Amino acid sequence: MQRGNGDADRPGDPGLFPAREAGMSSHKPGKRRVDFPVAAVLPAGGTGERTGLQTPKQFCTFLNRPLISYTIQAFERVSWIQSVVVVVAKESTDLMTDIVQRFQHSKVRVVQGGSTRHRSIFNGVRALGEAQAEGEEGSAPVKPKVVIIHDAVRPFVEEDFLYKIATAAKEQGAAGAIRPLVSTVIATTSEGYLDHSLERARYRASEMPQGFTYDVIYQAYQRCGESDFEFGTECLHLALQYCGTNAKLIEGPPTLWKVTYKRDLAAAESIIKETLSRSACVITGGSAQAAALADAVQKAMGALDMELDVVPDLKGDNARYLLEEWNFIQVSVSGCCLSEVEAMLAALEAANRALLHPLVVIWVRLNDSDGLSISGMTEPAAITELASAAKRRNILLYGIQLHQSKEADRWERSVLKVAEIMAALIRDRSPALVGQLLQA
Amino acid sequence: MQRGNGDADRPGDPGLFPAREAGMSSHKPGKRRVDFPVAAVLPAGGTGERTGLQTPKQFCTFLNRPLISYTIQAFERVSWIQSVVVVVAKESTDLMTDIVQRFQHSKVRVVQGGSTRHRSIFNGVRALGEAQAEGEEGSAPVKPKVVIIHDAVRPFVEEDFLYKIATAAKEQGAAGAIRPLVSTVIATTSEGYLDHSLERARYRASEMPQGFTYDVIYQAYQRCGESDFEFGTECLHLALQYCGTNAKLIEGPPTLWKVTYKRDLAAAESIIKETLSRSACVITGGSAQAAALADAVQKAMGALDMELDVVPDLKGDNARYLLEEWNFIQVSVSGCCLSEVEAMLAALEAANRALLHPLVVIWVRLNDSDGLSISGMTEPAAITELASAAKRRNILLYGIQLHQSKEADRWERSVLKVAEIMAALIRDRSPALVGQLLQA
Repeated sequence: MQRGNGDADRPGDPGLFPAREAGMSSHKPGKRRVDFPVAAVLPAGGTGERTGLQTPKQFCTFLNRPLISYTIQAFERVSWIQSVVVVVAKESTDLMTDIVQRFQHSKVRVVQGGSTRHRSIFNGVRALGEAQAEGEEGSAPVKPKVVIIHDAVRPFVEEDFLYKIATAAKEQGAAGAIRPLVSTVIATTSEGYLDHSLERARYRASEMPQGFTYDVIYQAYQRCGESDFEFGTECLHLALQYCGTNAKLIEGPPTLWKVTYKRDLAAAESIIKETLSRSACVITGGSAQAAALADAVQKAMGALDMELDVVPDLKGDNARYLLEEWNFIQVSVSGCCLSEVEAMLAALEAANRALLHPLVVIWVRLNDSDGLSISGMTEPAAITELASAAKRRNILLYGIQLHQSKEADRWERSVLKVAEIMAALIRDRSPALVGQLLQA
Repeated sequence: MQRGNGDADRPGDPGLFPAREAGMSSHKPGKRRVDFPVAAVLPAGGTGERTGLQTPKQFCTFLNRPLISYTIQAFERVSWIQSVVVVVAKESTDLMTDIVQRFQHSKVRVVQGGSTRHRSIFNGVRALGEAQAEGEEGSAPVKPKVVIIHDAVRPFVEEDFLYKIATAAKEQGAAGAIRPLVSTVIATTSEGYLDHSLERARYRASEMPQGFTYDVIYQAYQRCGESDFEFGTECLHLALQYCGTNAKLIEGPPTLWKVTYKRDLAAAESIIKETLSRSACVITGGSAQAAALADAVQKAMGALDMELDVVPDLKGDNARYLLEEWNFIQVSVSGCCLSEVEAMLAALEAANRALLHPLVVIWVRLNDSDGLSISGMTEPAAITELASAAKRRNILLYGIQLHQSKEADRWERSVLKVAEIMAALIRDRSPALVGQLLQA
């Protein structure tokens, strides 16, 4: 790497998220212990007018789910965060309430925002206090000691970092995420010429999340003036100005990045897709022939950076895959039997597994009669119908058929093709191609 | 949109690029006239160590092409830019030379970089001057009046903006792109606490491209010291300090964004894919039945934001589609005749159309015998073989078959399905699925 001003303080690759990044429901509570009540406020009142998108960013959908639901989930899965207040514009209240119900967000309360970002955040903070005063539905059992404020459009915040912010906020009164500056910051003359450039090392970009003790953030808003509410500076700045609280600044990971442009939605989708595509569970039904295919495909998929677990069925201990895995591959030998796939779909539906992310189920049909015309093998109508029904439940069903071959070369080519197609189906998660019976 | 500090100066949606964004080879020369010689220097010496990727970003590949080739193309297609010097690390010289040959970049010279970004840029600037002195291969006929410096990892720079930089540089001696600050910039105390936050309105982020008269940039580097070369500040800053040239700052579009993280590669790929997926050309072969299907699909695709041009063949005036379009749909009625597709593939290969972007060719097979079993329709082997050969030439061939139906409902469903599958194939451009014969 060249030294110079271009990349001096660039961090590591944010594409490599831990598994929980995509909100695995199997997320284990962190090792961190937090012995004081913490709540979060997510201001989500923007109407997105300035971004050029018709829908405000936080409500833009990818993989069948609005961005804000991913962010909410990042907080809900943290055991020590008691409640999440989402502050939305009046006209978005119904939409937001619908999202909360549809994705079964259990820690969320929807609060109506004000005319500026700061008024909205204050509404959220107040709502956290009122819940205690009114004993409202028991949804927020005690007034939080610490309030974390986070942007609705930064979905990839991690528990470890939330912990750092919460504990620093409790100790110092206020804490905020910072990141190195990406570009040189320059001061301009009023005529639009370069005046001077800032010394990068002395400055940082202020990001989210930020944390405050309830009393600091509440008092800061109580004491600040109309112009603060109206022209809004940093929350950290208000804490400093009105409570004398110097925020502790903590360097955050690049995953704190904010979804700002349309291209960022594509990036967020690709991160979620990648996280969902790391592994798959292959069910062989106990057939030796199917197991041999599964083992061969397992090796080929390994080369494509996808890990396969091969099991005979999903019973007993293996039932855990139904609760953990996002991709299932059912291998069937000969006959045209979709019953195993039907049983799996029923089990996945019963476990409500496709609530947060689309599941992929691939039916691999291994025909053991060498040389038979492929087109005569299977009536595709059955899988098409099954796939249509599954799609309505957010499960994407595809079929692949191939021939057992005694010619080693031909067999190897088929196996590679199966692996390649599987990897593409799992990574692309394309709803338009469900129900297709592909040839390997 | 709420007012406040969050989104105050966010620009429009960068996802909506003009067609030339993806480097259409049919790009027309801009209206702008530039009557002085302009050349570009692209420093591309980074080894990417700090990004966590194994390959330096500029050499990361999407849609079969390394990022730097997209950036080079953004300059090559501008008629008034005479030559482009790409400065790479010694160990990347062969790779870069190979890229230049493979993608037939005709204005490019590869120059070896120095140990820092500034040394590399100076090497590039010197090379532009030497070409004249030595009369080297006639590749740079005259020493440029203006040199544009741009990052190899900002592929979406537009001709209009290059024009603004070049003309301002000629007038003022130096010019640079600026963008509003995305985050609040704060000064930190040495103990890691908030000191103060900067008033956003007074500051800007300094971005690329930047332009200089040859004499200003050359003299700035001649005069500057070792510590400038070593610890590198802005080029604009060197011009100010050593030539007394106050750079003109020009607000650039969000498309100037720099590919920094792995997620940015996904975003760049999605932008290119979107640009390639705006339209398709449907060839009906003159059949009335095929034309009726094409018209119905055209309407359905319109609802999916994809524009279809329907033509009987690619002869005469319609031959221009072979030079302009990225997606072709051949509709055949009955029979199993791939000869039309074969002819099209030959024409596309002759036109060298798949050099810069993968082309999509979809063969739609309309069976006019109502109710016949789908599986008996076509031998898939033929399309599979054709697709394998085409894929090696960067052309992605897929098949879709459907049945003519007299039942209006059923027919409408088939048409919608065809449109949905087509849109997905064109948008995803998945190499793993070529040669498949999908059912609509």
